[in-house]
Amino acid sequence: MEEVDHLAHERSKTQFDVEAMKIVWAGSKHAFEVSDRISRLVASDPGFRKDNRTVLSRKELFKNTLRKAAYAWQRILELRLNEEEASRLRFYVDETAYTDLHWGMFVPAIKGQGTEEQQKKWLPLAYKMQIIGCYAQTELGHGSNVQGLETTATFDPKTDEFILHSPTLTSSKWWPGGLGKVSTHTVAYARLIIDGQDYGVNGFIVQLRSLDDHSPLPGITIGDIGTKFGNGGYNSMDNGVLQFDHVRIPRDQMLMRVSQVTREGKYLKSDVPRQLVYGTMVYVRQTIVSDASCALSRAVCIATRYSAVRRQFGSQDGGPETQVIDYKTQQNRLFPLLASAYAFRFVSEWLKCLYTDVTQRLQANDFSTLPEAHACTAGLKSLTTTATADGIEECRKLCGGHGYLCSSGLPELYAAYVPACTYEGDNIVLLLQVARFLMKTVSQLGKPVGTTTYMGQVEHLMQCRCAVQRAEDWLKPSVILEVFQARAARMSVACAENLSKFSIPEEGFAQLSADLVEAAIAHCQLIVVTKFIEKLQQDIPGKGVKEQLEALCNIYALSLLHKHQGDFLATGCISPKQASLVNGQLRSLYAQVRPNAIALVDAFNYTDHYLGSVLGRYDGNVYPKLYEEAWKDPLNDSVVPEGYHEYIRPLLKQQLRMARL
Amino acid sequence: MEEVDHLAHERSKTQFDVEAMKIVWAGSKHAFEVSDRISRLVASDPGFRKDNRTVLSRKELFKNTLRKAAYAWQRILELRLNEEEASRLRFYVDETAYTDLHWGMFVPAIKGQGTEEQQKKWLPLAYKMQIIGCYAQTELGHGSNVQGLETTATFDPKTDEFILHSPTLTSSKWWPGGLGKVSTHTVAYARLIIDGQDYGVNGFIVQLRSLDDHSPLPGITIGDIGTKFGNGGYNSMDNGVLQFDHVRIPRDQMLMRVSQVTREGKYLKSDVPRQLVYGTMVYVRQTIVSDASCALSRAVCIATRYSAVRRQFGSQDGGPETQVIDYKTQQNRLFPLLASAYAFRFVSEWLKCLYTDVTQRLQANDFSTLPEAHACTAGLKSLTTTATADGIEECRKLCGGHGYLCSSGLPELYAAYVPACTYEGDNIVLLLQVARFLMKTVSQLGKPVGTTTYMGQVEHLMQCRCAVQRAEDWLKPSVILEVFQARAARMSVACAENLSKFSIPEEGFAQLSADLVEAAIAHCQLIVVTKFIEKLQQDIPGKGVKEQLEALCNIYALSLLHKHQGDFLATGCISPKQASLVNGQLRSLYAQVRPNAIALVDAFNYTDHYLGSVLGRYDGNVYPKLYEEAWKDPLNDSVVPEGYHEYIRPLLKQQLRMARL
Repeated sequence: MEEVDHLAHERSKTQFDVEAMKIVWAGSKHAFEVSDRISRLVASDPGFRKDNRTVLSRKELFKNTLRKAAYAWQRILELRLNEEEASRLRFYVDETAYTDLHWGMFVPAIKGQGTEEQQKKWLPLAYKMQIIGCYAQTELGHGSNVQGLETTATFDPKTDEFILHSPTLTSSKWWPGGLGKVSTHTVAYARLIIDGQDYGVNGFIVQLRSLDDHSPLPGITIGDIGTKFGNGGYNSMDNGVLQFDHVRIPRDQMLMRVSQVTREGKYLKSDVPRQLVYGTMVYVRQTIVSDASCALSRAVCIATRYSAVRRQFGSQDGGPETQVIDYKTQQNRLFPLLASAYAFRFVSEWLKCLYTDVTQRLQANDFSTLPEAHACTAGLKSLTTTATADGIEECRKLCGGHGYLCSSGLPELYAAYVPACTYEGDNIVLLLQVARFLMKTVSQLGKPVGTTTYMGQVEHLMQCRCAVQRAEDWLKPSVILEVFQARAARMSVACAENLSKFSIPEEGFAQLSADLVEAAIAHCQLIVVTKFIEKLQQDIPGKGVKEQLEALCNIYALSLLHKHQGDFLATGCISPKQASLVNGQLRSLYAQVRPNAIALVDAFNYTDHYLGSVLGRYDGNVYPKLYEEAWKDPLNDSVVPEGYHEYIRPLLKQQLRMARL
Repeated sequence: MEEVDHLAHERSKTQFDVEAMKIVWAGSKHAFEVSDRISRLVASDPGFRKDNRTVLSRKELFKNTLRKAAYAWQRILELRLNEEEASRLRFYVDETAYTDLHWGMFVPAIKGQGTEEQQKKWLPLAYKMQIIGCYAQTELGHGSNVQGLETTATFDPKTDEFILHSPTLTSSKWWPGGLGKVSTHTVAYARLIIDGQDYGVNGFIVQLRSLDDHSPLPGITIGDIGTKFGNGGYNSMDNGVLQFDHVRIPRDQMLMRVSQVTREGKYLKSDVPRQLVYGTMVYVRQTIVSDASCALSRAVCIATRYSAVRRQFGSQDGGPETQVIDYKTQQNRLFPLLASAYAFRFVSEWLKCLYTDVTQRLQANDFSTLPEAHACTAGLKSLTTTATADGIEECRKLCGGHGYLCSSGLPELYAAYVPACTYEGDNIVLLLQVARFLMKTVSQLGKPVGTTTYMGQVEHLMQCRCAVQRAEDWLKPSVILEVFQARAARMSVACAENLSKFSIPEEGFAQLSADLVEAAIAHCQLIVVTKFIEKLQQDIPGKGVKEQLEALCNIYALSLLHKHQGDFLATGCISPKQASLVNGQLRSLYAQVRPNAIALVDAFNYTDHYLGSVLGRYDGNVYPKLYEEAWKDPLNDSVVPEGYHEYIRPLLKQQLRMARL
């Protein structure tokens, strides 16, 4: 078959070294090589086909997911993939499954909260998948507030066991992925009760199902919680409900790294600091930020390519219409998202370093940077997942009507991504945590370290004046940094001042929470801008690569500045005149990026399989393929639809009265 | 069964007459009575059950929709419902179906564009549903730009026929609802070609399928375009693809009200003004704005009730946790949406009057207000549908994790609503039309009439100063109106000034389009605020009703003011100090609305059937019903899932190599 590339003309305009950019995007030559190899491997294997996903019924979809998960595991074993490669393979298979929770939550929970002995016993089983685990924390009535969980684990000294029990309907475990139909084991969180006293929430390893026939063990009621948003989406996952009716487990199945219960029923705290738990949190959230950059870049790739293919209006003398990517309204919505994808990529890279740093300090019993690292990751999780979810939907809208078809890939991408705004900490709750930390820093209860270092110069930041006089001045990193710092500092200080007017601090915090959330957002945006700028201070090889990244960095910062100009103006960080100069500068940045737009999304190096979008095809051959896809819909199995004889013909023939409806 | 009302305590706090508010919401006592009666009728009829919608396969869903549509028609005939009642019935059945297009587009197209003779021939058939019609305008390669359509209708003088033809793949009709599987006829839009000359796009009545056996007529290729966003959503609709291969229709099936083709092949324009078409557009868009208020109020009703049921954090001394509706962050997101639902309701009511006025003027050959009416409806369509789509998703997020379950009703509501941002004019394209009109008004090419009357006082508005000194000053309607007028005027004037710097006006319009969109939004928000304030100047009976609406009006205006404070500050309409006073005032307005929140959503008078949401139940009995719903999922048909023996057991038993995956 002849290969066409409808985007060849676009690609010929590229002004930078795309191969070098691919390595920047991947993080390293090694990471690129692994990603590239594994993604092709998945794409070329019919066992991982996913284009039929949206027309399957829930049962068919789920069964097919079970098949793929087993097949992926088989391939991992056959090809002797290492951990990094295996994780990439699961990533490119691109179907949420019970394995996500097994590897992403069950195993880490045992690693982080289990004693050495417990790890020795359980991890080998989990590593070989002789048991499959999940993570049962949230309950029907309890999500964000972990301390409010109702499930109990009561110690029975007579038998040396814990009795797990769900005392109310609202205490039913609810949502855990992999729980509903697959997991044989779980880490369940429950209130530890000894001799009538409540010792708070702890984790327990509980076997759920027989390893012989998969039936739930006695006292365990377990099921799927029902269909979720989207056609495929998370419906490939068996999010579950679980009730315990006095289920007994041996004492040694409480995860005992940070606190223990002795044979005699004594509750002991170990000398392992509780803060270790936060280390894990930093890790998990770093992963979420990295996933955000993937999901957003994927949507941006689809929308950018299709915007270059799609033409509308502006035909002159019977010539072709204008490519929609050439409209400023399109650029104004699309290019900031392209820039955000890169920005989130770099900030997630930096978070990896932060995690390493925090881990090393924890091992040396240095907890000084932990609150800052915790606030920073909480804030970045919130900021990037919100922006990504909104950004995917925006990309879908940028594809016009066709973006609404499942064959565009975008509806699925959104439906499967958006839970990231809720899991691992509701995004608003997280921002309030960031705000609480900022208020401590402003009131000098905490020392400004790490990402809050700028707070050390608060006096300067409260009164500095932005020096921008011409549009080009907005391209200076130092100018951008200062106004973002000044805005964040001034918003925090204003909140702190307003808080001080309340006699009961908690009452003030509640009343001003909407303002506090905005201050937290300003702080988090500053972090992303800062890390992007810092990235550009490094040596970046490849012709034209750095120039493109500089343009994207400026687009990221200036589009935020425009979107939030209310903050900057209200705090006096910039003048109305300076605000209006931003718009003009953005337009020329868009013009600079425009010829490179296709290459900038090619640099993500996504296969057509992974993108899963007719609109985002590498070759831009959109219309014939859209047409082809349409005919695959089950409704087209017959020309005359099922139901014609019962429900259409009697109506047309005015014979409804005789029909049974 | 004992009836519980978990929200009784909330309802007991109400400070206004809910029954009176129901009538205000419905528009009149009569409208309320009809809505109330028909909605109960639908809710109590098992034939209209819809709770199983999200677990049906596409084919089952579609067949069930055919059944419901036929059953609805049967009930309409049996109960001898009048047009208003029939339309309400279809509304409360709440399932997009081919009938929407038959009644909403096919019939109006013939009414508006057909001659009297044509109407006499076709309308009786359509009214009795002896034929089913749809509206085939958009093509695979052509959406917004109607003038770019490629389908041709060539006059053949020998046979006195038109030959309809799809000359390219991109000319395939694509998207029309009802086309794919059901319609027997369509109004197809095609370029009229006579003797090699192109007379532009005209409408033609074309029979698609045999009335005997429903098979497509010769030369017609027709099918469904595939699965769309969401589980149920628009998948109950057969959006279709259609290709003509030299299909012949009699000459008298061209819609000839505004232009004719004679037997001799002469093209004539009738003396009926083309502007009549815009009258229809005003009508259709008014309907869309009214639908926006329905969809948004429905989401708000669900989120408000659930926010009163859900509790999280803040338990003191072992007491219950805090209702999430009491958190300011929740109120700050939810109450502006509640206010928007009311605002959109009142502006849609006003649009009805505008339509009547325009129609009367058109009949008297007065076209003076038409451009303004056209711009105004275009803008309001864009503004309200964007806000509603975003608002539904926000409501879903306000319900936390549980909002992601289909049983919450919100995923479906979003997926089925969001196309409104695209159909009947892409929202960004529409805003650019508004902007174009505003630029004409500012440059005094057009006289400021109707919603642009304020532009007549542009000199005052350019230099007026906001008089707000204390937070309470923000409650004055005159103050609010003036700042919204000043902001809109100043943004338009600034755009006009920047445009004048370009030597080629179209180039300027293209370059500044992002700014122009923002100016158009400012103008449209002003219209909504103005109409809400005007509504409150009328007499509104019922204890406390007006007070509640005043609070909502202020919340609507001030939350917009805060969200867009960048506009107000950048144009110098308000000072930073005045901007900061807005926040405090909003907080007290939220406190004022809080005890009435449940009653304010009760006033929408939605049945549990129509809401279709476990979280939004009138009685607030959320958790037991969520639990009940979960077990209905097909995955719970068996305790051990299908696929266990093939894909889970071999994995656990390390026997994958023997399995065939």
